[in-house]
Amino acid sequence: MSVLDGGFGADAQWVGQEAELSARVALSVVVEPTDTKLAPVIRELGPVRAWSAISSNEGGHFDRCQPRVRALDLDQVLWNTHRSGARLLFPGLPGWPTGLDDLECPPFTVWARGCLTQIDWARSVAVVGSRAATSYGLHVAGEFGYDLASSGYLVVSGAAFGIDAAAHRGALAADVPTIAVLAGGVDRPYPVAHSQLLDQIRANGLILSEAPPGSSPRRERFLARNRLIAALTAGTVVIEAGLRSGALSSAGHAERLGRVLAAVPGPVTSAASAGTNAWIRDGRAVLVSSAAQCVELVSPIGEGLLAPERDELALVYDDLAEVPRRVFESLPKSRTTTVDRLAVIAGVSGQEVMAALGSLELTGRVERSAGGWRRCSQASPG
Amino acid sequence: MSVLDGGFGADAQWVGQEAELSARVALSVVVEPTDTKLAPVIRELGPVRAWSAISSNEGGHFDRCQPRVRALDLDQVLWNTHRSGARLLFPGLPGWPTGLDDLECPPFTVWARGCLTQIDWARSVAVVGSRAATSYGLHVAGEFGYDLASSGYLVVSGAAFGIDAAAHRGALAADVPTIAVLAGGVDRPYPVAHSQLLDQIRANGLILSEAPPGSSPRRERFLARNRLIAALTAGTVVIEAGLRSGALSSAGHAERLGRVLAAVPGPVTSAASAGTNAWIRDGRAVLVSSAAQCVELVSPIGEGLLAPERDELALVYDDLAEVPRRVFESLPKSRTTTVDRLAVIAGVSGQEVMAALGSLELTGRVERSAGGWRRCSQASPG
Repeated sequence: MSVLDGGFGADAQWVGQEAELSARVALSVVVEPTDTKLAPVIRELGPVRAWSAISSNEGGHFDRCQPRVRALDLDQVLWNTHRSGARLLFPGLPGWPTGLDDLECPPFTVWARGCLTQIDWARSVAVVGSRAATSYGLHVAGEFGYDLASSGYLVVSGAAFGIDAAAHRGALAADVPTIAVLAGGVDRPYPVAHSQLLDQIRANGLILSEAPPGSSPRRERFLARNRLIAALTAGTVVIEAGLRSGALSSAGHAERLGRVLAAVPGPVTSAASAGTNAWIRDGRAVLVSSAAQCVELVSPIGEGLLAPERDELALVYDDLAEVPRRVFESLPKSRTTTVDRLAVIAGVSGQEVMAALGSLELTGRVERSAGGWRRCSQASPG
Repeated sequence: MSVLDGGFGADAQWVGQEAELSARVALSVVVEPTDTKLAPVIRELGPVRAWSAISSNEGGHFDRCQPRVRALDLDQVLWNTHRSGARLLFPGLPGWPTGLDDLECPPFTVWARGCLTQIDWARSVAVVGSRAATSYGLHVAGEFGYDLASSGYLVVSGAAFGIDAAAHRGALAADVPTIAVLAGGVDRPYPVAHSQLLDQIRANGLILSEAPPGSSPRRERFLARNRLIAALTAGTVVIEAGLRSGALSSAGHAERLGRVLAAVPGPVTSAASAGTNAWIRDGRAVLVSSAAQCVELVSPIGEGLLAPERDELALVYDDLAEVPRRVFESLPKSRTTTVDRLAVIAGVSGQEVMAALGSLELTGRVERSAGGWRRCSQASPG
């Protein structure tokens, strides 16, 4: 059984590339994707030549691969792929997320399980954070997931406990597909407690992994997985992360890849926000307070200017010129007063007081009364 | 009665400057300190010439000042000063906070009430924020006040409700003097509910104002007061501020003056942190999570490196090289396993497994047992 007839159908796009595709699947099983010793060799040789060298332990350079080479059962891998209903994605072929090509160690192949096929990765955001999230973090992650999805952005995360799950659930609540990237095989729901969540994600969205079906996730694979989440998306937002949180590894990848990196601030009294606050402080992540601000960061120029303008910062009295403002301020809250008294209190001339009162009267802020001038009862400063 | 014999004693430093000092006191009463029309004129003419021109309404240019000129009773001002036990501070004379000279509209004179005389303004921090503070903000303000004071920094604030009071109280709790800058006269406790707090501040620290004793605070004076808080200190930290908070006016002054400007982040769900978060986001304020980080920002280079180093960010496994890390990770949590099995799981050669196990054994992470190798029971990854 080859990659081509492994139940995937004789896909026209693969014709003539069988050797490369087979080599890629084999490399996925045998080589750790982030192996810093092997990756440059494979990159230089290309997958077919590399697989030939590795499988024959050419020059004795590939001792470390031999235990897995001997254990490799490509048929079984392809059979697992078929049985799990997963598709294989290959670099350069349709469906491949081109963002992955930016990685120093791109995956050899990616397994995809689910029904989402047309994906505009330019409109995707990774929402990540601690498993040990607080109620604040879970709330914000849910809001961001919902709002990003509602704004037409694809929410990508890792289906882990805490922030990841809250973000996925937020997107699902908006009835929008979401994508989970797993550290183990796409047929191995992890964590097991999220089997149902992963079923929901798969039903409309997608589950991705570079680990062959059947593989169980190991710690190192979680770190490797994080680089995929960062590379797939236009930007990453960290909702909550302690100083040692694994979520910061996703953030580090986004940073190295030159992707947009955003973080949500939190109370300085909360250990779960210590990492996000530190990254904002160091200028490594942009502070975002809302999904709209996220969209503004990741969207192509001119699009997505959804974040409300913030000239609410302008002070309440800004629409009044200096002298009228001083005069208005000098009026007692509930009594009437005279022009002379106002001149002393405001520190302006009687003439200026008169002119100011005239304009304030026109805009309904003050009124004449028996004893002189007073504020209109409904007059607000703004 | 002149400034010189107004009960302040014949201070040698004032001899020969009586005219200027009198003029400055008179200008303090008659001219709003931030009057953008008069300030440049006074700056150009100098206080003596300016006061002469204003008091005689030279060329009819100073109509707006005449109501106050006519109402001016300099003797009364000096008597109020004397009675309140306040000292007068003048630019260029000992005791004058030279930071005030950086202002576009520096005060004509400043009244000081309290017993603090030797002040190292380079070691001072303004702690400001909303009156409508949350329990989070009050807690953080108290901690910052206490920690800054304990670190040898002078806490300067406005004695207002909320953040200001919490910061002052934090400093007082550390038994360290603190400074309140008021919008009204130094003899007019404001807010009245803080009379006792202001007494405490005065007992060891200082109350400052550019408003003559007897003046009650008006809104415009609060904004003017904020520029003093920013100019007096080496840096300003905003603890909590909504988008329209007056505390942002202090922040704006600190920014324009080139002072250090820091802000404490808060939950994006809290309106009381919307202003601080926005200023951090826009790069206008540096995020700080602790008083130590504040000190690090405002202290002269090389001093005050109190903020804990943050390489806790390093991941837990960072002290292990790649291959030993992979081997260690491949060991099951509670069973023993064989070298061959480890080679397949870790994706390295049998020889590499042996070498890695050797080094892991030396550092007490793994041990040999009947069935092969296993993790030491107390082995933590780090």
